[in-house]
Formats: sequence, structure tokens, C-alpha cells
Amino acid sequence: MSHSPHSSGPLDDYGPTERTVPTRSKERASYDRATVHALLDDEYVCHLGFIRDGAPVVLPTLYARVGERIYVHGSTGSRPMRAADPGLAVCLTVTHVDGLVLARSAFHHSINYRSVVIHGTAYQVADPEEKRLALDALVDAVVPGRAADSRPANARELAATAVVRLDLAEASAKIRTGPPNDEAEDMDLPHWSGVVPRTRVYGTPIPSSDLDPSIGLPEYLAGR
Amino acid sequence: MSHSPHSSGPLDDYGPTERTVPTRSKERASYDRATVHALLDDEYVCHLGFIRDGAPVVLPTLYARVGERIYVHGSTGSRPMRAADPGLAVCLTVTHVDGLVLARSAFHHSINYRSVVIHGTAYQVADPEEKRLALDALVDAVVPGRAADSRPANARELAATAVVRLDLAEASAKIRTGPPNDEAEDMDLPHWSGVVPRTRVYGTPIPSSDLDPSIGLPEYLAGR
Repeated sequence: MSHSPHSSGPLDDYGPTERTVPTRSKERASYDRATVHALLDDEYVCHLGFIRDGAPVVLPTLYARVGERIYVHGSTGSRPMRAADPGLAVCLTVTHVDGLVLARSAFHHSINYRSVVIHGTAYQVADPEEKRLALDALVDAVVPGRAADSRPANARELAATAVVRLDLAEASAKIRTGPPNDEAEDMDLPHWSGVVPRTRVYGTPIPSSDLDPSIGLPEYLAGR
Repeated sequence: MSHSPHSSGPLDDYGPTERTVPTRSKERASYDRATVHALLDDEYVCHLGFIRDGAPVVLPTLYARVGERIYVHGSTGSRPMRAADPGLAVCLTVTHVDGLVLARSAFHHSINYRSVVIHGTAYQVADPEEKRLALDALVDAVVPGRAADSRPANARELAATAVVRLDLAEASAKIRTGPPNDEAEDMDLPHWSGVVPRTRVYGTPIPSSDLDPSIGLPEYLAGR
């Protein structure tokens, strides 16, 4: 029964490791596979960290999850892509900002957020079929259904694009929700206390000026 | 005249360095001080990268800009804060996602974004007055005007909080705007092409359930 998707057996968790257990607010950490997947699937821009010339580098980039693998892509000439040929130690982080937490005390101000941090080694994808599927997944991560409604990469474009894979093995989520945690002795202070929700929204799609006017808005965009 | 805020003299730019000049899309990079400041001032959550036990770590955290300094804070017991006592090499990145760029070809799909990447060494702030001002700035970065309308940190809270400073010296912005860049030979393909704008919005503030009902919504929140 531990293989059931609703069990709490070991296969449903990423085992905590020394570096995925936070030093503080441990109660906010989760290693639950479904939680990590859901947070990853609700975004497509991550921050990818790696080491270059002995110093940390953090760059925003697109990602897509396919099962227990995360894919990112870039120019074959870019520095992190080249470094991922023998294997590159990375930390890939995805953050949702859900609200501003205003406590009566400055100290207890906080942010409601949901984040995932993945540690591991990124490798360049050599298999052409896996690469093609990863590129489709990267387009569909941004707009589900779009990969099938665009011209696939040709040989020249495929050669110019590197895809990098990171296995979801050492991963954790961290989540803060709810109202501020004010001190008992602060409750009578005359300061407003509460949460300001924050979310992302999509505006009305803007067609390219050179778009054939007979091409209407696709169904997969109409609902956004 | 090169000191004028409207000149394009060297003081208005962060000088490009080997690691702030991108290997591709160089036309998207900017070292303009006002551009970097504006992008930093329009957010308060960054991704902070550093090296721990030889591996990269990327964590989301609050930041505030005060002049040419960036401040972040954390528990005095947290690992990056302790590491910043002698000085910690960091990369601090802020990203705005402004739109989804849908090209006729999968290859030319992109994201409209504005990002800032800062490289440098973070140091713990020892001066109590600078620390106090930085903590006010961190509250005001999230909600301007809020620091003056909350109880300031007491001695115990100040002792539990570490503030870290990163000088804005090696910084660059990268910006993509506008429609997709389709290939000439793709213009007659039957795929919708354009941009889906994305922005962040704030919802109606939610008062804490234990808030004295005579305390109304402060003016600095009413306009959000």
C-alpha cells in the first residue's frame, strides 16, 4: 500500500538531507512529492544557481517538469550549458509570492510564499528524442497546448539549443500561509495587522502586428 | 557635467565586467544605474545565491535598496547570515516576468522580463544605527510607509536578527520587451503569434481576526 498515491510511504517523499532541512522555521518545510510537483507545475520561471570561477551565479530561466526530471534550456554557446556537459552542480529554486504579512511589530512582518529548492547535478541531454520532448515540455510549461500549435525546431535550431536535465531527488518545499504571528503583548498596539494577498495575472493577449487577421485567439489562450 | 543625473558619464553606469557581460543577447544588457535602481525598487523578493560546502544554494529572501547598498536580513542563527560575518560571495538576482512571447516557431518562444544580477561580497552589518535603518528599509520596501506604523524591533529582536549588506558595484540589468522575433519564412504559418502580458496584483487586504475593529485600513494600503 505504500505505493498508493495517497499513502505517506517513503516513495511519496523526497528524503530530507542535511542541506534541505532548514535551520529555522522547520515546520514550514515539506518533502512531500505531490506538494513539490504542484508548486513546480504552477510556474515556469526558476532561478538557477551554479558556480563559475569560484563564485555563485543566479540566473532566471525557464524550466519544465517531466515526471521526476526538470529541464532547462539555453544556447549551446552559453556558459552554464557548456559547463553542464561533464555535469554541473546546481541549485534550482522556484518561488511563488502569495501575500504580504503585516504584523503589529516590525519584527514579525513576513511574506506568504511557496518555494521549492532542488539540489543536484545538471547534465546535458544527448538523446535527440529526449531533447525534443523536453523542448515541447518547455513550450507547454508556459502555455499548455502551445507546442502542438507552433513550428517544431528544425535541425539548425536543435543544434543551437542545449537542454539540461536535473533529477528531482534532493528537493524540498517551504510554505508560509496565514495571518501574522504577533506577540501577546503587542495585541493592543494601534497598528493595522493582516495580510495583503498578491497574485500574478495575465492580461489580454496582444497579437503581433503582422499576424494574419483570420487567425483568431487559440482556445488554449482564451481561458487565461 | 558628468555628475549630473541626466548625463551618460561613467558615474551613471555600473562598469561592465567579464561576468556581467552576457555571452548572448548582449543588446538586452544594461549597466545604467537608473535602470538598475528602478528594477530593484519595483520588487522586494530576490533570489540570493551563495556557496555552501562547495555547492551552490539559491534562496528567496526579502531585500531593500538604500542608495548603493542592498540589505537582506535573517536569523542570526541561519547559515548564510553566519557565513557573512567574515564576508560571503553572493549573487543577488531580481526578476520581473512581464509577458509570454508566443512565436510561430517553438524556437523563438520567449519571455518578456526585466532582471537585475548583482555580484559581490555580503558583509554583516555591525553598526547598530545602520542595522536599524536597514530593518526599517526592509519593512518599507514591502509596504512604503509601514515602518513608521509598526512597533520597532526591541533589543531581543535586534539581537536575533542579522542584517547583511551588499554594495551595488558589479550589477547589470537584462530586459526583453516587445513582440516575438519570427523568421521571415515562418510568417505564413497558421499559428497565432503575439504576447500575453503578465503582471502581479494585490488583492483586498485581509485584517487579522483579532484586529480591533476601530483600526481602519491605513492610507498606505488603500491605494494598492
